[in-house]
Amino acid sequence: AMTHQPTSSHVIEGDPSSWKTSYVENATNLFNKDVPVCVKGGPDGASEKIEELTVRILLGLNKTKQHKVLRVQVTSDSDPFFFHSMEVSEEEFQSLKVEQSILVDFHQFPDKFIELLEECVASRGEANPRFLAVLRLGAEEGDDSALGVVETNKFKHLSHISLAFRPGDDASIKKYLAARLMDVKGERDVWRRSHGDASDELRDARAAVEAAAAEATAQREAARDAQAAAQARLDELAAKLKRSALEELENTKT
Amino acid sequence: AMTHQPTSSHVIEGDPSSWKTSYVENATNLFNKDVPVCVKGGPDGASEKIEELTVRILLGLNKTKQHKVLRVQVTSDSDPFFFHSMEVSEEEFQSLKVEQSILVDFHQFPDKFIELLEECVASRGEANPRFLAVLRLGAEEGDDSALGVVETNKFKHLSHISLAFRPGDDASIKKYLAARLMDVKGERDVWRRSHGDASDELRDARAAVEAAAAEATAQREAARDAQAAAQARLDELAAKLKRSALEELENTKT
Repeated sequence: AMTHQPTSSHVIEGDPSSWKTSYVENATNLFNKDVPVCVKGGPDGASEKIEELTVRILLGLNKTKQHKVLRVQVTSDSDPFFFHSMEVSEEEFQSLKVEQSILVDFHQFPDKFIELLEECVASRGEANPRFLAVLRLGAEEGDDSALGVVETNKFKHLSHISLAFRPGDDASIKKYLAARLMDVKGERDVWRRSHGDASDELRDARAAVEAAAAEATAQREAARDAQAAAQARLDELAAKLKRSALEELENTKT
Repeated sequence: AMTHQPTSSHVIEGDPSSWKTSYVENATNLFNKDVPVCVKGGPDGASEKIEELTVRILLGLNKTKQHKVLRVQVTSDSDPFFFHSMEVSEEEFQSLKVEQSILVDFHQFPDKFIELLEECVASRGEANPRFLAVLRLGAEEGDDSALGVVETNKFKHLSHISLAFRPGDDASIKKYLAARLMDVKGERDVWRRSHGDASDELRDARAAVEAAAAEATAQREAARDAQAAAQARLDELAAKLKRSALEELENTKT
């Protein structure tokens, strides 16, 4: 399947009560993929099922544009209002590092996290997936959620990581959807332009096909004409030869 | 400019607190155009300026799918959070009709309203636009707004229509943006497929150019070969003629 993997995504930050108090950021797309995620808990309680959710990891800057911020968004293609996200700045990462016994620094962390998510993708469809992403929803509406990656070996479940996530409220989902709309409008415009370019090239190529076909026809006719002209001269010469042969015969007779 | 005018748009209705309690509707696009709109009032007060806003008129069905609903959305390309909307069902239209002294029925109303909006579009850029769309914002955040069309003649300002609008809150903007995201994803996918098709045709056309060019070359060579072969036979015959002429000369000599 033809997929368009943009290298950056829009993120809308700031006070979402008006557009003036918000700001748009272009964050680098480090990861943007559907991952099978086991969704657990939530107000419904015990329900637990594996869903294909989109995990997006974005590296951007904070409001002051001085510190790097890592954002992780978990969304669903089948539910536009489904939005769980977390963000951690380079500074905040220090406490996360201690809390989660992480041995790598802020800059190495995304790659390691992506490796774990790729393991989950690779385990897709397995009856007992070795690596499984788990999104644990809060017990009450609006409670924090948590995204983790669990490895299951013959001995035990091994939690590789567990990050605190926030479920989206109307304001944050509004910000997220507005940013996605900007992304997808950009993608649409790229495809529209590409289509325009391809259509132009197609028009030129079709004209070239016609020109080449006309040239081939002209050459075919030229070949036929040349053959006909040659044949005519041959016929003429053959007649001339015949005449001189007859004359010679006449001469020998006399 | 190449514009893509889709014939239908998504509308998300129902309780936006979750996707399960919402529903998606496919409404018919009656009008979807940028219109110069004079934006007045609002919490800022006296500011008044003409902005290019998108007016979208959609004809759909209400939740029970039994009654037609006309929806008008006023949005801004430069402010994704800007959203003013109104909806009126066929039933509700009766009171609007009385209130606004409208002489046409529900089914004729959109065309008449669109005519007025087209007049506003035609008056774009005029120093004293004859027809001007006016969006009056509520004095307080969240207060009702009103969209009207005013004609200015030499005698007076004439209000053709004035409809009560609701400014969007986080929940309604979320619904609107989710619906637009569906629309634009659909447009992106159409352009992507069109681009794919055009690319395939382009590949075929390029192959056809090559084939036709090869055919033209082959025919050119065939013409040259035919001419060369004819020339060879002519040369041969000419030599033969010359020989027999010489022989004849020899014969007459003896």
